[in-house]
Amino acid sequence: MPTAVEYARANSARFLDELKALLRIPSVSTLPEHKNDVRRAADSLAAELKRLRMENVHLIETAGHPLVYADWLHAPGKPTVLCYGHYDVQPPDPLDEWLSPPFEPTERDGNLYARGAVDDKGQMYMHVKALESLFASHSGTLPLNVRVILEGEEEVGGEAIAKFVREHPEQLKADFALVSDTEMFAPELPTLCVGLRGMIYTEIEARGARTDLHSGMYGGAAPNPFVALAHIIAQLKDKDGRILIPGFYDKIKAPSADELKTWKGLPFDEEHYRQTEVGSAQLTGEPGYSVLERTWARPTLDVHGMPGGFTGAGAKTVIPARATAKISMRLVPDMTPQESFAQYKRYVESLKPVGIELSVRLIHSGDPIVIGTDNPYIRAATKALRHAWNKDTVFIRSGGSIPIVGDFERHLKIPTVMMGFGLPDDNLHAPNEKFHLPNFYRGIESIITFFEELGR
Amino acid sequence: MPTAVEYARANSARFLDELKALLRIPSVSTLPEHKNDVRRAADSLAAELKRLRMENVHLIETAGHPLVYADWLHAPGKPTVLCYGHYDVQPPDPLDEWLSPPFEPTERDGNLYARGAVDDKGQMYMHVKALESLFASHSGTLPLNVRVILEGEEEVGGEAIAKFVREHPEQLKADFALVSDTEMFAPELPTLCVGLRGMIYTEIEARGARTDLHSGMYGGAAPNPFVALAHIIAQLKDKDGRILIPGFYDKIKAPSADELKTWKGLPFDEEHYRQTEVGSAQLTGEPGYSVLERTWARPTLDVHGMPGGFTGAGAKTVIPARATAKISMRLVPDMTPQESFAQYKRYVESLKPVGIELSVRLIHSGDPIVIGTDNPYIRAATKALRHAWNKDTVFIRSGGSIPIVGDFERHLKIPTVMMGFGLPDDNLHAPNEKFHLPNFYRGIESIITFFEELGR
Repeated sequence: MPTAVEYARANSARFLDELKALLRIPSVSTLPEHKNDVRRAADSLAAELKRLRMENVHLIETAGHPLVYADWLHAPGKPTVLCYGHYDVQPPDPLDEWLSPPFEPTERDGNLYARGAVDDKGQMYMHVKALESLFASHSGTLPLNVRVILEGEEEVGGEAIAKFVREHPEQLKADFALVSDTEMFAPELPTLCVGLRGMIYTEIEARGARTDLHSGMYGGAAPNPFVALAHIIAQLKDKDGRILIPGFYDKIKAPSADELKTWKGLPFDEEHYRQTEVGSAQLTGEPGYSVLERTWARPTLDVHGMPGGFTGAGAKTVIPARATAKISMRLVPDMTPQESFAQYKRYVESLKPVGIELSVRLIHSGDPIVIGTDNPYIRAATKALRHAWNKDTVFIRSGGSIPIVGDFERHLKIPTVMMGFGLPDDNLHAPNEKFHLPNFYRGIESIITFFEELGR
Repeated sequence: MPTAVEYARANSARFLDELKALLRIPSVSTLPEHKNDVRRAADSLAAELKRLRMENVHLIETAGHPLVYADWLHAPGKPTVLCYGHYDVQPPDPLDEWLSPPFEPTERDGNLYARGAVDDKGQMYMHVKALESLFASHSGTLPLNVRVILEGEEEVGGEAIAKFVREHPEQLKADFALVSDTEMFAPELPTLCVGLRGMIYTEIEARGARTDLHSGMYGGAAPNPFVALAHIIAQLKDKDGRILIPGFYDKIKAPSADELKTWKGLPFDEEHYRQTEVGSAQLTGEPGYSVLERTWARPTLDVHGMPGGFTGAGAKTVIPARATAKISMRLVPDMTPQESFAQYKRYVESLKPVGIELSVRLIHSGDPIVIGTDNPYIRAATKALRHAWNKDTVFIRSGGSIPIVGDFERHLKIPTVMMGFGLPDDNLHAPNEKFHLPNFYRGIESIITFFEELGR
């Protein structure tokens, strides 16, 4: 019988074909017109888990998109891992910037291009294929106990899984969770993520006149909701990138001296990062902090879009009755979404311009998190990564948010191993999202070895 | 033989039906998909002018939508009027706020609701029907010489007619122009508009990162084009409505003491205006000026839309690579579009935020204008209005822009009589645009009497 790693290598072409089939399903959770596609993705994953010999495979219905559950719990005395992933994806727009269609997976230069290739279908699928390889090489058994929970709402706030974890912690009982939704710090550098920023995603709606008005007739008397929002936004964040919300920075816990030292030693060149990843004339952000500190350990505030008014080509001289700003903030330990949103809402309302009514809404939120490195799961993961990549693991943080990690900590009382294989230039949430294929294959091997190490 | 006014009254129901047919053509000049509709409107007007016995009727092709020309020049020794109007309309969005479809003219409470009902198809059609009535009652002749020029690009800047007036002034030779694209100050109050604001309509495009980026990964390092635009806009206009562009107010000529006195005497109640026309919690604008001064005699700055980023429902955590602000300014005598745009562009560029590239574009512009009241055309118009409405005419300004009036002054050296019959609550450029039908009929009679007076 081949080892699990040998099995994975022998079947890699099929694994890739199966991943492509999953990527062809446009499971965009935020768009109502894709509701059935999201369910199709869930159904196909459930069928695949059944095929592998996972047990109790079923969809858990929710107010939104379903969860997929499976388990295999026949390794007494061994740890139980909770494998988490999400099968929903971000919207693909702007479509015209994709070099190949977002839902037609295309290989170029050793990469697989598709919406969801790395975030998170491709990474979630590494878990599935690691389990298949383990079953195949361990006489239909697994070296440890496994629960799988997959969600279809990660990109829209993950309300359903948060509720399930909160209300049914006993059904997800495990010793630790494995999440592959993060990235490696650099190519060929095995990485465990041990810190995440939290977030609050909000909308400010500004309302002025009762209906849209002609700017010639009414300009000079009617309030302009876009000008109002501009004044508010300009007072939320100053030109240097400092957030101006009173009290916003009060609870921030600075990274430890050890962490800062490690970060300084990472192969990171700000000028290279600016040129190859961001591509802007200059980088921005709070003075006095390195890019890694600014994106991992400092809160931020971004505007994502400002719907309303006239957005077509050409000219329309309208004073719109209303306009909205979609604004999110990233949070770091020990900030909390509740307190940060309250500070933000209070401050925004205090800035209310003349003639304007405001609504400040919280769309979704997630806690910031820091995982301790001194536990058997992180140690086994480090060992597996050394085996697969022949290099020492670096511990980093991520600027993104994975709210579920906070939920696991709060309700299941378990740590999460964030073992991700994305790369910094994978274009998450952007056109031309990709997954570096060697990382897909090596990721499967890493997870196989990790689980075998824990079952030893 | 009936008089022209009698003829108009006897045929008013047919006039209305014909106007409705014209309003059914969605001649939205700014939307490429309506290009053929715009031409259909031009064709139908040319056919109607031919039917009336106007001569030399033809379309003048341009780089954009065609002009419609017609003349009748057989009244030697009598003045020549240049009748101007536009047959294009604003886009109808937001569609869901219309109580009846924008291109299905609907009568309610003595009003005709449709996009273009008053701006300007309905008002332009008063000229056409006045000419028909005069031909019918003057044995197939007119009491004065008439040229008609109609354009299909007024709502997108009027480039084609501006070029034609500039390059072929001899083909439009006349003693004065008649434009009906303004409003009465109040119902039953005959009004001549003798001042218009000019305008510059611009776009600022802000570009940051090369592609859209994930705000978790890059928030704190990548520039945000919306935040950049917010900072710029907040520095263009302060919270009190003062424009902050250096030099912007330098050339403003204050209204005369007589004008200010007249304006004070107009039946205008700011609180009533706020409640019934604007509907906002408060009015805005420069402190120290009345609403009429602010909307007629002071420049303004408005933001019409901010395309870019994510504008769908829900949440997308993107730092967009680019965002645009559509910004216009209204100008008053003696400001010029050239100088004002140069001041604006220079100032905006001086505000360039870190990491952001800016493009500042002029989309279109128009001169501000003041017409003298001491000429035979304004006197005859006043007399005709007294006859039709049995009231003295008030001389007002308008906050809107009619760039063609400036072109007529500059290139044809003729004054324009702005005799409009819209009402302040006609919802120009907004959902539920309407024309008060008694004004349509009385407007036709006013124009008939005006032309007969000049031909006496």
